[in-house]
Amino acid sequence: MKKIRAAVVGYGNIGKYVVEALEAAVDFEIAGIVRRASSVATAGESEYPVVSSLEELADVDVAILCTPSRLVEQSAVTALKLGISTVDSFDIHTGIADMRARLDEVAREAGAAALISIGWDPGSDSVVRALLEVCAPQGITYTNFGPGMSMGHTVAVKAIEGVKAALSMTIPVGTGIHRRMVYIELEEGYDFAKVSEAIKSDPYFVHDETHVMLVESVEALKDMGHGVNMVRKGVSGKTQNQRFEFNMSIDNPGLTSQILVAGARAVLRQKPGAYTMIEIPIIDFLAGDREQIIRRLV
Amino acid sequence: MKKIRAAVVGYGNIGKYVVEALEAAVDFEIAGIVRRASSVATAGESEYPVVSSLEELADVDVAILCTPSRLVEQSAVTALKLGISTVDSFDIHTGIADMRARLDEVAREAGAAALISIGWDPGSDSVVRALLEVCAPQGITYTNFGPGMSMGHTVAVKAIEGVKAALSMTIPVGTGIHRRMVYIELEEGYDFAKVSEAIKSDPYFVHDETHVMLVESVEALKDMGHGVNMVRKGVSGKTQNQRFEFNMSIDNPGLTSQILVAGARAVLRQKPGAYTMIEIPIIDFLAGDREQIIRRLV
Repeated sequence: MKKIRAAVVGYGNIGKYVVEALEAAVDFEIAGIVRRASSVATAGESEYPVVSSLEELADVDVAILCTPSRLVEQSAVTALKLGISTVDSFDIHTGIADMRARLDEVAREAGAAALISIGWDPGSDSVVRALLEVCAPQGITYTNFGPGMSMGHTVAVKAIEGVKAALSMTIPVGTGIHRRMVYIELEEGYDFAKVSEAIKSDPYFVHDETHVMLVESVEALKDMGHGVNMVRKGVSGKTQNQRFEFNMSIDNPGLTSQILVAGARAVLRQKPGAYTMIEIPIIDFLAGDREQIIRRLV
Repeated sequence: MKKIRAAVVGYGNIGKYVVEALEAAVDFEIAGIVRRASSVATAGESEYPVVSSLEELADVDVAILCTPSRLVEQSAVTALKLGISTVDSFDIHTGIADMRARLDEVAREAGAAALISIGWDPGSDSVVRALLEVCAPQGITYTNFGPGMSMGHTVAVKAIEGVKAALSMTIPVGTGIHRRMVYIELEEGYDFAKVSEAIKSDPYFVHDETHVMLVESVEALKDMGHGVNMVRKGVSGKTQNQRFEFNMSIDNPGLTSQILVAGARAVLRQKPGAYTMIEIPIIDFLAGDREQIIRRLV
């Protein structure tokens, strides 16, 4: 069987885990890794070609975009215009539908496909959210995150004057409400009470219960575990009180990368265009013979 | 907006709940109900046409098959040959892939589509099982059912000599192992110990922990509630110990019927052929504007 040739674009935390997930998948081979020119120069030895542009790699079927969210769209356009399908974990929820519309046009014109905003939320959580509405169209779903590190909130804390190092943890308190536990180290000469007040009045924190704590080492507190607890109570037809719950406790980059790799498989099975995870049959994400999958899982 | 015209084929427990779910769905109208000729004669007044053959109903887009599993395939063939797409809840797991292959041929020839074996298991559970393998391809999934009534096991008990009335409850004890709690009324002149032994050595029960109890009224114990607890622990890429859990506590015919109606919407969006639930994008099961759905759920 011909293997799928994947390029890994971006080699930060997610990129490294994507390489692992590709190595663990029987139907993939790694065409190479695309990094910034400055990183390529200092990259050292690698099992795989390390280049600064996708065009330098031969016969790439799909590009797995592991760049930060704000750089994803440009990376996707570059790949799609080369006729290479893409998969990304763009996670700014409010920007997904618009990016999808723009990439859809680019992808159709190039005859390639883009699967956007996959990973676990947006991604597998989106599939569960949609499935629960199929099961009970009327009702309320609460998605509770954590305990786990919030990248966005951590960056927001780091931007505040006097903060030397920071970690913002998301703690679920139910019904989609979250407590923020913020751990900081202070720059010399700053007053903890004032910095703490500045954090609590930042737009990222002002609406949530926020606790700020001074610690000796932020680094010592870090862990990449995360969690989700999704709950729906709703109505099926005219039948009330239908209850559903989905829980997970996972290594965050591990799961994100695994779903990106499954998505790289799925995107090659789609017609040209841009898609989110709920627009693609789940079976397309799985390796192996379709009839066997149906016999085993349905 | 033109509404989808659905025919309800079979008017037992599920058929009645399907009518409710169709009435609750904004995008459907009920073309009529197809029953056995003998039932049509004694049906009495109904808000909807009651007929004995699908051909007697006008402009049917989709037939929702609410007949027992062993009659589903013939009902599906009849509808498909009229060019009417079908959806069913055929639930004999070992027969699904073969029935799909046979109906696929009929459906393609007729230019219609069949969505088979939906409901909650097979059905929404199949989607969750597949999704969890996307998230962690290596590992074990346990699907635990109950507490709830098992139709198949109840029928098996009723077939045993001396049993006047029966109810077999499925009790989850974890790791996909189930205890069977069997409640019976005895026919006059039979010995409880002997009947109990006969039940425990029946192929349906011989491999499970089975308890048989004599009760005054089986009817007084019945309730249509059911449950699922699905657990997967597995590996994402090379990352171990990823944990997932899905729970639901539901009215059984209420949920089955709701998913059948959502499936009736989804099947009309597919190309001719036969499908299981994991082969269709989840978004196709939802009513409303697709871009709005993406903005709300992804």
